[in-house]
Amino acid sequence: MTDQTSNAMWGGRFAAGPDEIMEAINASIGYDRRLAAQDIAGSRAHAAMLGATGIVDPTEAEAIREGLLTVLSEIEDGSFVFSTALEDIHMNVEARLKDLIGPVAGRLHTARSRNDQVATDFRLWVRDQIDAAMTGLEALQFALIEQAEAGAEWVMPGFTHLQTAQPVTWGHHMMAYVEMFGRDASRFRDARARMNESPLGAAALAGTGFPIDREMTAEALGFDRPCANSLDAVSDRDFALEFLSAASITAVHLSRLAEELVIWSSAQFRFVSLSDRWSTGSSIMPQKRNPDAAELLRAKLGRILGATVGLFTVMKGLPLAYSKDMQEDKEQVFDAADSLMLALAAMTGMVGDMTANRDALRGAAASGFSTATDLADWLVREAGLPFREAHHATGALVAKAEAKGCDLPDLTLEEMQEVNPAITEGVFDVLTVEASVASRSCYGGTAPEQVKRQAAGWRARLSRG
Amino acid sequence: MTDQTSNAMWGGRFAAGPDEIMEAINASIGYDRRLAAQDIAGSRAHAAMLGATGIVDPTEAEAIREGLLTVLSEIEDGSFVFSTALEDIHMNVEARLKDLIGPVAGRLHTARSRNDQVATDFRLWVRDQIDAAMTGLEALQFALIEQAEAGAEWVMPGFTHLQTAQPVTWGHHMMAYVEMFGRDASRFRDARARMNESPLGAAALAGTGFPIDREMTAEALGFDRPCANSLDAVSDRDFALEFLSAASITAVHLSRLAEELVIWSSAQFRFVSLSDRWSTGSSIMPQKRNPDAAELLRAKLGRILGATVGLFTVMKGLPLAYSKDMQEDKEQVFDAADSLMLALAAMTGMVGDMTANRDALRGAAASGFSTATDLADWLVREAGLPFREAHHATGALVAKAEAKGCDLPDLTLEEMQEVNPAITEGVFDVLTVEASVASRSCYGGTAPEQVKRQAAGWRARLSRG
Amino acid sequence: MTDQTSNAMWGGRFAAGPDEIMEAINASIGYDRRLAAQDIAGSRAHAAMLGATGIVDPTEAEAIREGLLTVLSEIEDGSFVFSTALEDIHMNVEARLKDLIGPVAGRLHTARSRNDQVATDFRLWVRDQIDAAMTGLEALQFALIEQAEAGAEWVMPGFTHLQTAQPVTWGHHMMAYVEMFGRDASRFRDARARMNESPLGAAALAGTGFPIDREMTAEALGFDRPCANSLDAVSDRDFALEFLSAASITAVHLSRLAEELVIWSSAQFRFVSLSDRWSTGSSIMPQKRNPDAAELLRAKLGRILGATVGLFTVMKGLPLAYSKDMQEDKEQVFDAADSLMLALAAMTGMVGDMTANRDALRGAAASGFSTATDLADWLVREAGLPFREAHHATGALVAKAEAKGCDLPDLTLEEMQEVNPAITEGVFDVLTVEASVASRSCYGGTAPEQVKRQAAGWRARLSRG
Amino acid sequence: MTDQTSNAMWGGRFAAGPDEIMEAINASIGYDRRLAAQDIAGSRAHAAMLGATGIVDPTEAEAIREGLLTVLSEIEDGSFVFSTALEDIHMNVEARLKDLIGPVAGRLHTARSRNDQVATDFRLWVRDQIDAAMTGLEALQFALIEQAEAGAEWVMPGFTHLQTAQPVTWGHHMMAYVEMFGRDASRFRDARARMNESPLGAAALAGTGFPIDREMTAEALGFDRPCANSLDAVSDRDFALEFLSAASITAVHLSRLAEELVIWSSAQFRFVSLSDRWSTGSSIMPQKRNPDAAELLRAKLGRILGATVGLFTVMKGLPLAYSKDMQEDKEQVFDAADSLMLALAAMTGMVGDMTANRDALRGAAASGFSTATDLADWLVREAGLPFREAHHATGALVAKAEAKGCDLPDLTLEEMQEVNPAITEGVFDVLTVEASVASRSCYGGTAPEQVKRQAAGWRARLSRG
Repeated sequence: MTDQTSNAMWGGRFAAGPDEIMEAINASIGYDRRLAAQDIAGSRAHAAMLGATGIVDPTEAEAIREGLLTVLSEIEDGSFVFSTALEDIHMNVEARLKDLIGPVAGRLHTARSRNDQVATDFRLWVRDQIDAAMTGLEALQFALIEQAEAGAEWVMPGFTHLQTAQPVTWGHHMMAYVEMFGRDASRFRDARARMNESPLGAAALAGTGFPIDREMTAEALGFDRPCANSLDAVSDRDFALEFLSAASITAVHLSRLAEELVIWSSAQFRFVSLSDRWSTGSSIMPQKRNPDAAELLRAKLGRILGATVGLFTVMKGLPLAYSKDMQEDKEQVFDAADSLMLALAAMTGMVGDMTANRDALRGAAASGFSTATDLADWLVREAGLPFREAHHATGALVAKAEAKGCDLPDLTLEEMQEVNPAITEGVFDVLTVEASVASRSCYGGTAPEQVKRQAAGWRARLSRG
Repeated sequence: MTDQTSNAMWGGRFAAGPDEIMEAINASIGYDRRLAAQDIAGSRAHAAMLGATGIVDPTEAEAIREGLLTVLSEIEDGSFVFSTALEDIHMNVEARLKDLIGPVAGRLHTARSRNDQVATDFRLWVRDQIDAAMTGLEALQFALIEQAEAGAEWVMPGFTHLQTAQPVTWGHHMMAYVEMFGRDASRFRDARARMNESPLGAAALAGTGFPIDREMTAEALGFDRPCANSLDAVSDRDFALEFLSAASITAVHLSRLAEELVIWSSAQFRFVSLSDRWSTGSSIMPQKRNPDAAELLRAKLGRILGATVGLFTVMKGLPLAYSKDMQEDKEQVFDAADSLMLALAAMTGMVGDMTANRDALRGAAASGFSTATDLADWLVREAGLPFREAHHATGALVAKAEAKGCDLPDLTLEEMQEVNPAITEGVFDVLTVEASVASRSCYGGTAPEQVKRQAAGWRARLSRG
Repeated sequence: MTDQTSNAMWGGRFAAGPDEIMEAINASIGYDRRLAAQDIAGSRAHAAMLGATGIVDPTEAEAIREGLLTVLSEIEDGSFVFSTALEDIHMNVEARLKDLIGPVAGRLHTARSRNDQVATDFRLWVRDQIDAAMTGLEALQFALIEQAEAGAEWVMPGFTHLQTAQPVTWGHHMMAYVEMFGRDASRFRDARARMNESPLGAAALAGTGFPIDREMTAEALGFDRPCANSLDAVSDRDFALEFLSAASITAVHLSRLAEELVIWSSAQFRFVSLSDRWSTGSSIMPQKRNPDAAELLRAKLGRILGATVGLFTVMKGLPLAYSKDMQEDKEQVFDAADSLMLALAAMTGMVGDMTANRDALRGAAASGFSTATDLADWLVREAGLPFREAHHATGALVAKAEAKGCDLPDLTLEEMQEVNPAITEGVFDVLTVEASVASRSCYGGTAPEQVKRQAAGWRARLSRG
Repeated sequence: MTDQTSNAMWGGRFAAGPDEIMEAINASIGYDRRLAAQDIAGSRAHAAMLGATGIVDPTEAEAIREGLLTVLSEIEDGSFVFSTALEDIHMNVEARLKDLIGPVAGRLHTARSRNDQVATDFRLWVRDQIDAAMTGLEALQFALIEQAEAGAEWVMPGFTHLQTAQPVTWGHHMMAYVEMFGRDASRFRDARARMNESPLGAAALAGTGFPIDREMTAEALGFDRPCANSLDAVSDRDFALEFLSAASITAVHLSRLAEELVIWSSAQFRFVSLSDRWSTGSSIMPQKRNPDAAELLRAKLGRILGATVGLFTVMKGLPLAYSKDMQEDKEQVFDAADSLMLALAAMTGMVGDMTANRDALRGAAASGFSTATDLADWLVREAGLPFREAHHATGALVAKAEAKGCDLPDLTLEEMQEVNPAITEGVFDVLTVEASVASRSCYGGTAPEQVKRQAAGWRARLSRG
């Protein structure tokens, strides 16, 4: 069948013939150029090892290493011309290297294959992202800690089901996210330790007969050790799956905080004001401030989880060792990593800039009989009532307050004693929202002193404390 | 907090300050420029309606329409300069329009909002993709029909559990995919009919007080009718979810065919040879032909399903009407659509170019006692054996053949009659793979005549028959 | 290796040996018993056809059909004893049939295989679910229409970004969901039409040599036609994927409405009161009403989307025709269908029982300068101001009102004319929220008359109108 | 609206009225009874602490602890009657406790809430699953190591793109999976360390005013420490998300091995024979052995990944602290955990029982010029050819062998020297598959000595080595 027939046959979007289609589906240089720095670092480490072991003449190895530095600088200054015909970053770099230093460039590929090369490049890239994620998480934690410290004593409603349940402190709420993002950082740290092994030397899949020194290349690239099985080394993408999974969990946390910011910014809640930077206005409604950045961050889970599902699906059922399907790994991870880093930075900015509306927070906390639990606990603890009786009395007091149109601390002692004569003046010590939060001073509780201690502890633990 | 502090605080990848981060997360012009043609078509229809209804002076309306054509031609010839500061495609187009025709450009936005505008643009874009998908599916069906017609009589093993079960014909196997891709096309067709409604006129979310003519703009843009509820019109992304779902089902079918091509190309199967175009070789193993394109197509489900999960997750729990989260809809759909169209074109090319290895197919079909079912059915049908007895006799005959190291048709009549004397010479008419497939001539069966009829029927049904 | 060693080796949760493990992973009777009615219907249709075509003696065929009815009644009255050793529903039914009518039961499996049998059963089951989904959606639409009709004139804020944008009506908001659920029903209708084909007669995968009548069994089971390709008939699970995709889109809509109900139930919004039935209280905070049902419905998308991803992943890359992987199709669909039907029923109940708080709705609508757009449009339309100037004047008037601590309609004409002298008394006709919604009377707009017309139209369209 | 109307209105599957529907959607006892042992352990620890701190009279605390033991034994011996009206496992246990020991049972709930209780129960349950997963993975690793040790020297083809690339050893291939499952175990280990914190004492969300001892309950339940923030403690489901993510990665590995087993079991490959236990036969094709268990394991990724996506979607955007949506966490995790443990046990059995077909493996390895790379490397290493020239010569030699219809070692020295005179007799030392694998003796390579060393290393590392 001639190309002409073929073209007619395809219809749809592809006026181009089969060669263009194959190039479009096969070439990866459009995106894997992002691996350029890693590719060159890997090649330089490999060349140094080839020279040190005598597999390649040391002078030639040094020429290769120098040539690679030139290629890198060309890429960094933008003068490098990428070629789709050369398909991928490896071939683009090698071709240019050959232009620069001649046929000796060919020796670089001794005892190596594109399979262990790309596995190495991609691992190094993901490792950098893990480091960036940890840095970004730490910055976000600091922004939250600052909010927590400022508002360790500001009372706000603690919600269950978006209904006021008990008073908590602003600082305590902020510190809940510090915990979440702290777990996220520790998850990335574990992933880094697990994935920090060098595939270099696995060659195509079976290892190589050349007397290479895998420890040397591993060390040069900051890996803890070489991968222990060459088949696994070239077919493994666990490190990408684990990075994506960890990123998805972080994105869940971001989506929860973002949802709160959107709700808290509504005219009905008015718990926070986001700064102009992170919101957009309206030319005709100057008072309007849309929490655009928060909404975009809420959505990022979709993107990151989508990438995660994408790569899991790609990897399903692939026989060892290398299958071309695995070329679909990079764009998913690139997009998820970009989304994550951008989201962390934006959330850090938003949290740093936002202003809590203390009056609205306290007002909301002090309505809805939010200290009913404190009252019931007081009846058990101080008045010695059995649990059930304490609950019954509390319900009656809430009903009384509701009928009177006031909140619990506004009842008189007499009104209280009508419900249960065991109640004494002391009860008023627990009925204000301030007393309520102060009383929850056990480890992990919402009392201001606890919050301050937790914040100080985290400051100390984080490197920049 | 000053920007300097902020910057220091963010660390990670963002040396830039908050404004750059907000721009990076907020601006969509980097990708929504792909909606340029749709945006201008929508604006031209809106302007025509504004003129026709007298909401805007007809001369001014015409000037707007002309100016938009100029903008479109600038975009098409590459001379248009997109600005990130102008955030999105709508603002880029409007700003340029104003450069070209002056303040009258401002009238275009009368009785319209960015909310109904983007909903219209995106719907038009998705509708184009649906059309492209249907065209691409039809081309792929034709390529499969050609294979089916050529090989209507070629016998191959029909597998269950990747174990030979019964003989089928190559044509029948190809036609199975014609059915699948035919269902896919019908699914896109239904999606198109359902989504072909015009959001224009919904304005921000409530409709407008201007006396607009929604039927007129709907018709001008090829929509079947205007959306019936303005809140729904701006908050609905069902059309994108349905497009992605349909694309995912198509991708499942592509992955199944791709898996078969990979397995069939192995040295162990050798059922097909893929052309050089769709495979890659090795400089030192010239006989090696890696089915790269098939593997890449197998992987595309990951990408498309990932995008699907992504948008479903984004849309979860969004209150009406418009939330900024919805800006995350486009890139998912763009990527999935690109992947789908490319995959359809590549599969069409691969199927068109591939060569079935008839000898290997028949050889595989004729081993493994693949006509045992035919034998059992013959014993029931012709020799009048009860079902259970027929099965028992067949098992005994297979065991006998296995012991003798031959297949069923190689047994003598005497050997057969030792197992069951009711067997006559006639049995040999059903024991060859050719007889087996010929006998399955009921509607939908694998008999060559059936296959030819189905192929002819599909040819007639498809528009280019 | 002996079982003893093996057992020791497995450790973990499995004290049992390999046979128990294989049974646990292989047997499906634990869940596919839900297909009993479909299995028996399919077998009865098949038996009738075997009798009619003379493949089986008509008297025997009738005995089989009668026996199957007995089995069905035993299953329905709970007296049937399911056996895991018999693995699946097909074998359980057949074994019991043989107990009841003797060896003639064996003839039922003539010209059939478990592959086309299970494909038929499952298709029938999914078809029933599609019907149930359409019924459930219609009931929900009616509940929403009743709310819409009652509140066609109640004004509430129309939100973008959860910020008040423009006034809309309660009825209009309800009708937006009527549109969504209407699209859902049409999506299920299309899926039903597409999947309503009979796999019976495909046998194991290749069709059969017996002179069966596939049209007859198709018709008896309510199918529109037999499947056209036997390989496709037994390997296709598109109908399940499409059902799951449609269910996921419906679940998105449910999650959006549920989110709104949760937010609207908060003390800060107080837009609706959910009835006691669909919420839970607190023994000590009697006024508290947690929107539990709404939260559970919001979560159902997770479950249904999870099942969808699950089956897509299972089907990835399966070669034709039948692979055992496909046994994993049922539980995903069963769980998603149960979740969907329950969610539709619960949402119908919740919507039917809920009470809108008209005062809170109107109060929220009338704050936040929600008629600023109306003012700007009036300035363009009535005062002839250019767009930009109208926007500028509106912004100035909003600022003036904000400074004065009032809303737009509370400004005096003089105050308005200070900003722009072209303003006349007529402007006050558009500044109230009632005037605003009334003015949006174009097709699909929020005006009460439009809402009533849409509601009436839907009533007429739905079968029970 | 009366119930009668309501019922009529719902239609669909629910003949039942609203109360039944709410019960169906709200009650969790149908599945959370699986938490019974954890719930009782948590309550016993809490009671002991209440007694020790004097919050509850020590005698009463002891009565509670004893009563809970009785409840546990009733549940374990099956005599406990679960009640749906009591909604969940916590209420069922408490109600029974009260039956047994009277009103003092009520004191158990002092300083506790269902929110911290369920968080504790579920964490304990997931922790048990993590332990079971690690045990199951270790058993599977042992089964693989046994295969690896037996077949450290058996040569088989190493595939890329399912095309023979280079010879590897059976043992090396098995050890690749040992690495994967080893990483899986380490991932579960990290998850365990991270999640091993006690939510008890967080109470509803804010902590409690009672002087509880959170360290004491944490220690009693085997937790490393109490959770540091009470809001986080009750709203966190990271541990479930991380468990599901880790399980999904394990399932990817299982799917890859399963795919290989399915392909290797085909008549075309015949690389392995699965035992009868893990496969199913056919009554009429006695030689047929379907790899059912392998196919089912391949499919389990779908189920586990589906559950993962499900819970991620549920958690998206939930405001703090507790929302009822989170009740949807358990079934996803239960199902995924069951699938994982069953899959690990079945794979362990299958790997333990399977028999490699050494002849078929070697035969496949020795075809397809699989030692071409060895030849090229020899030319570089021993004959001193430049890389490019070595590749060129190798290609020519392969072509020569192909033309002659033989493999590389079957060429004569003369034929070789015609291509390149630098070739000497020594070349034949690298052309056999045995020589090829033996030469790849660097760390991680496929050489038998390397495989044995890796296997021994793993044996030592695993606890039962």
